[in-house]
Amino acid sequence: MTSIKDIAQIAGVAVGTVSRVINNSGPVKLETRRKVEEVIRRMNYVPNEVARNFKMQKSKMVALLLPSIWHPFFSELAYYIEDELDQSGFKLMLCNSGGKPEKELYYLDMLRQNKVAGIVGITYNDIEKNVGPEIPMVSIDRRFDRKITCVTSDNFEGGRIALQELVKAGVQRPVFIGAVAAMSSETMNRKAGFVHEAQRLGVDGSVFERPDPIMDEEAYFDEFFRIHPEADGVFAINDMFAAKYIDRAVKLGLKVPEDVKVIGYDGIQSHTYFHPVLSTIRQPVEAMARTAVQLLFRKMNGEGLPRETYRLPVIFRRGETT
Amino acid sequence: MTSIKDIAQIAGVAVGTVSRVINNSGPVKLETRRKVEEVIRRMNYVPNEVARNFKMQKSKMVALLLPSIWHPFFSELAYYIEDELDQSGFKLMLCNSGGKPEKELYYLDMLRQNKVAGIVGITYNDIEKNVGPEIPMVSIDRRFDRKITCVTSDNFEGGRIALQELVKAGVQRPVFIGAVAAMSSETMNRKAGFVHEAQRLGVDGSVFERPDPIMDEEAYFDEFFRIHPEADGVFAINDMFAAKYIDRAVKLGLKVPEDVKVIGYDGIQSHTYFHPVLSTIRQPVEAMARTAVQLLFRKMNGEGLPRETYRLPVIFRRGETT
Repeated sequence: MTSIKDIAQIAGVAVGTVSRVINNSGPVKLETRRKVEEVIRRMNYVPNEVARNFKMQKSKMVALLLPSIWHPFFSELAYYIEDELDQSGFKLMLCNSGGKPEKELYYLDMLRQNKVAGIVGITYNDIEKNVGPEIPMVSIDRRFDRKITCVTSDNFEGGRIALQELVKAGVQRPVFIGAVAAMSSETMNRKAGFVHEAQRLGVDGSVFERPDPIMDEEAYFDEFFRIHPEADGVFAINDMFAAKYIDRAVKLGLKVPEDVKVIGYDGIQSHTYFHPVLSTIRQPVEAMARTAVQLLFRKMNGEGLPRETYRLPVIFRRGETT
Repeated sequence: MTSIKDIAQIAGVAVGTVSRVINNSGPVKLETRRKVEEVIRRMNYVPNEVARNFKMQKSKMVALLLPSIWHPFFSELAYYIEDELDQSGFKLMLCNSGGKPEKELYYLDMLRQNKVAGIVGITYNDIEKNVGPEIPMVSIDRRFDRKITCVTSDNFEGGRIALQELVKAGVQRPVFIGAVAAMSSETMNRKAGFVHEAQRLGVDGSVFERPDPIMDEEAYFDEFFRIHPEADGVFAINDMFAAKYIDRAVKLGLKVPEDVKVIGYDGIQSHTYFHPVLSTIRQPVEAMARTAVQLLFRKMNGEGLPRETYRLPVIFRRGETT
């Protein structure tokens, strides 16, 4: 049977080089890699990876649980998480778990079976009773009652900034609009920061919320415009919500930003080709992704982390709606 | 040592049920799953998955190679690919390979080592010399010189429809705008269909192309407007390109669709909250994703496929730009 030494000899490289090619565990020139690949192919050499895993009992795979990759915020996040994992030789397993709690539980199984080394997750289901603090899992946005490390943007500060920016733009009766999820989540702090800052500045702010998910958006906004005809500024819980609000407002004859100023949250627009370009609280998506992966690596190494929740700073990005 | 029989007995379920929970290989009620999970946890029972893999020598993992998940077309595609794989108990490994040919080669290695069972890929690098027709790989859009099965939208028909729709909207001097990639790709048929149809109808159509990647977009469009001041209709190679063109045209004082009608390709806009809502040739993304996975499964089973290229029908979706 062909051995790794045979491959090295035929390719005219060191055994270590062949090993690096096979394991992708260090720098190999593209040309050298191709040469080694070519010999491996010609000789039908198959390093028994599965057997090797058996010996090492280690997975180089991290699972990413997202409600849906088909959303600009999540796909940007996934992009940077994959990039950060790749730099340490880890692979990303992707799971759209939206509305399917059994998929999230399945990945916890995989973790217990060493099929994945860790999980980064934005989960909206109640899986916390299945997860202990020792589990190498990092949550994004959703805080799990202190058991799972959470990386999030500074939602409270984002809410404060949004209120400040609306006031700076001349708004006198700002309203926060959103939906209340059944599960506690860091994103609720957006409203809290908004309310706190309105009180601090003595501004006449309001909150309009209905239970999540909002099944009938038309009814939601009809009710909003009935209850808050006075609103001259809106802070929406996220950009998509802001866009939906603007769509309705414009249909009712309101002008944005002349009649009503609008600020969203996320920063999903990565260019300015489609309008309106939203004024928004921009989440530091790349930093959140890389931080989540680095914290996960530390948990995988058995390190205790000094904190439970890591809040990264946000910025206000002015668009066309304030 | 705890056995699967012990788990079944303690949980009060059949061994088959425990097995289904562990392998996620069939329907188990959520409540039952949780009960079995709970017993597994309490007994510290770890089914040796890696050892099982060793015995079975089979991976239930499919790799998806994309230039970048952070693009609405690719993230929509990834969403449906994951969903289709999940229905057969397969997991998705995600790789952003954009600009990194060595990452694509690495996944081919994994395939040879049985770490992944197959690859679905949108690759733009020259990996075809590393791939034989027996390799369970399905390409999307990019055709690899007949070695790799390719699933694509009917680009030629899309180009024809775009020309027809521009003419229907009153356009007399339509121009196709795009970039020429070094590698042959199915997407080149968009131009071919456009040109074919213009000739067939006796319309005075033009083509404006520069080598891909276009480093200086400003210079690209400056040149376009200098050479084609007469253009009253544009068919862009994709939606992002259409959006960029419109942005420049509007800055020059042109009105869309009054002065110039524009049609894109892809259908990346999944809602109508941001404007302009592009008139576009909509790719059947969901059908392409599911077809690619089903064809991959057949290749993984060693089936010969009757065709090399599977072209799925497109439709014209009218937006605000024609």
